[in-house]
Amino acid sequence: MRRTIENLEESKIREVANAGLGRPDVLAFWFGESDEVTPDFIRQAAVDSIQRGETFYSHNLGLPELRTEIAQTMSRKHPLHGNAQPIAMERIAVTAGGVNALMLAVQALVDPGDDVVAVTPVWPNLTAQPLIMGAHLRTVPLQPVNGAWTLDLDRLLAQITADTKLLIVNAPNNPTGWTLSTEEQRAILDHCRRTGTWILADEVYENLYYAPSAQGCAPSFLDLSVPEDRLVVVHSFSKSFLMTGWRLGWMVMPPALTVPMGKLIEFNTSCASVFVQRAGIAALQHADDVTPRVVAHLQACRDALVPALQALPGLSLATPQGGMYAFFQLPGAKDSLEVAKRLVREAGLGLAPGNAFAPEANGWLRWCFASKDIARLHDGVARLADWMQRAPK
Amino acid sequence: MRRTIENLEESKIREVANAGLGRPDVLAFWFGESDEVTPDFIRQAAVDSIQRGETFYSHNLGLPELRTEIAQTMSRKHPLHGNAQPIAMERIAVTAGGVNALMLAVQALVDPGDDVVAVTPVWPNLTAQPLIMGAHLRTVPLQPVNGAWTLDLDRLLAQITADTKLLIVNAPNNPTGWTLSTEEQRAILDHCRRTGTWILADEVYENLYYAPSAQGCAPSFLDLSVPEDRLVVVHSFSKSFLMTGWRLGWMVMPPALTVPMGKLIEFNTSCASVFVQRAGIAALQHADDVTPRVVAHLQACRDALVPALQALPGLSLATPQGGMYAFFQLPGAKDSLEVAKRLVREAGLGLAPGNAFAPEANGWLRWCFASKDIARLHDGVARLADWMQRAPK
Repeated sequence: MRRTIENLEESKIREVANAGLGRPDVLAFWFGESDEVTPDFIRQAAVDSIQRGETFYSHNLGLPELRTEIAQTMSRKHPLHGNAQPIAMERIAVTAGGVNALMLAVQALVDPGDDVVAVTPVWPNLTAQPLIMGAHLRTVPLQPVNGAWTLDLDRLLAQITADTKLLIVNAPNNPTGWTLSTEEQRAILDHCRRTGTWILADEVYENLYYAPSAQGCAPSFLDLSVPEDRLVVVHSFSKSFLMTGWRLGWMVMPPALTVPMGKLIEFNTSCASVFVQRAGIAALQHADDVTPRVVAHLQACRDALVPALQALPGLSLATPQGGMYAFFQLPGAKDSLEVAKRLVREAGLGLAPGNAFAPEANGWLRWCFASKDIARLHDGVARLADWMQRAPK
Repeated sequence: MRRTIENLEESKIREVANAGLGRPDVLAFWFGESDEVTPDFIRQAAVDSIQRGETFYSHNLGLPELRTEIAQTMSRKHPLHGNAQPIAMERIAVTAGGVNALMLAVQALVDPGDDVVAVTPVWPNLTAQPLIMGAHLRTVPLQPVNGAWTLDLDRLLAQITADTKLLIVNAPNNPTGWTLSTEEQRAILDHCRRTGTWILADEVYENLYYAPSAQGCAPSFLDLSVPEDRLVVVHSFSKSFLMTGWRLGWMVMPPALTVPMGKLIEFNTSCASVFVQRAGIAALQHADDVTPRVVAHLQACRDALVPALQALPGLSLATPQGGMYAFFQLPGAKDSLEVAKRLVREAGLGLAPGNAFAPEANGWLRWCFASKDIARLHDGVARLADWMQRAPK
């Protein structure tokens, strides 16, 4: 077995969850997933497809109907794109989840030994993928300022040179809730055009955005780019449509990448199931029946949880403008993993440890606030407050 | 974009199929897929799961119920395994199709620059995967003898040295129908134990086996190995259960590979959909209601097609002992791809070109005989015979 693969870190989140196995009393907020089932009409579209007998292979890049629906959705959200050209369906590939789109992009772009830069803290999959492909990975950490993780733009740009093959950035960010402004995206894109660096933008949380905006979503590199830019933007049905378990995502790529990407999909998974893609079509066609409600509920969750956490003595956290996580520093916590395991055992509270996302986030904890029942969040805060009072330091 | 990825061959099969686009009169036998819908009870298991609301993430390695069912199935088929120890469920990983299991195994085992040997002709995905990972690939061709592609065992073993990280072998073979005997498998396994070489055995056609056998399936490396051998055996639900479009497969691996494989699945696709896995559980629990019928029908297809092809003047092919393909040499054919395109245009017959599988198979054509209606096969042969008579050489 490859040393590289043995050395990949096991999920610290799963390690905490394992500490809670068989403990039905644990209030779990460790995974990045809502506890709400996929809406009926989306599930029904898949059921209808299965019952019609759509059980055969399909096109590597996805059903043309789905690619068209995705292209139209993305064009509506990003009308400035490429001097107001709509995003062509030929630039869309349908994948087995957002994570699969990210892995395929890294396979397409990164040769062994290539220099890759990633902005951290970030969910661990994004930094593991270039390592799997044999790349040389460098990380550029955000800095916590009054509980808000903040980008030093000049520092990032200084790290991206003509030798840098790929920049990986996830904003709105998991776990910190950090977002990129349009101005920052423009500076990054301009710089990467000069250095010839590809940008892999994980924008799966773009709809989960709580700041005022014209299009009702976070700023995107797609707002600024032309089709030929070295840019791959990755999306997922998971968060905006409550479809985590369906494993359906997509990427927007330059036209020149489409044919090679079809080959890579053939060699990785061949295609997404037709009946899963039918669910995706239904979701996009009736997005207005789902996503605004999901986002409004998540905002209500955020607005319940974050002030309650901020009221606890010594906790450091800012209100996240995007995503579905509260990320906070616990006073006195040195090893997040150890603290998270203790919280499971001693308080029945399941959170994700910050050092799962970067060493610099040790001492921090991630709380996924995607909870159908907001009262669960209050119960969780009560458990944390109680534990903080009685726990030995 | 990586030169390696640009240089990956596009599917010649798809190139032929594209030549037939919009031609509903073409009799298509180009893809490796039955034209029969997945059985009702398997589809119903997925529908029930979706309706129950099983739409969340699941374990990276698959549902424990499915892994247990797979382990029991494999243990029944390969009772000699590891001195009659059953195959433990901990050695099973559920994947997004057989091709995904193969890709994950290559990711786990092959470092950039590693020496990899593959037996050819073989379906192109198997040789593309090590190239994607930056490996150095060498191929060892089978030799056609009276229309039957045959292994020169000594020649193969001589190519596998202590520097060889991985041997890739697909038997029963797509496209040739070549199978490995138990004695050959033993010789290969013994040799690879000495050189420290991993074996990646694509055995997805093991149930599609037409020679007499004790267990009703092709010989497997699992019959001879112990759990700790450097061996990964890959399977799929696609062929034995008419489930191509479901993208569900699995691998059997040494215990030491399980934890790293769980990480790789997390970073590639995260997990298979629960409702798809429920379909897999139903399929395995009632395999006797599906697979024997599928195999008997495929054998009837083979026994209709192969003698009819052998009766055509100058055609060279042997009766395949496994798989679902007739692979034959057409007299005077130099460029399989060109011939296959002409057959589409001039005869309305869709076959896969031999040079899609290896340069040494140029001049050969692959015919997938998985046809629900056997009369379609006869119609196809009539078209071929007619074309051979009238076509300019």
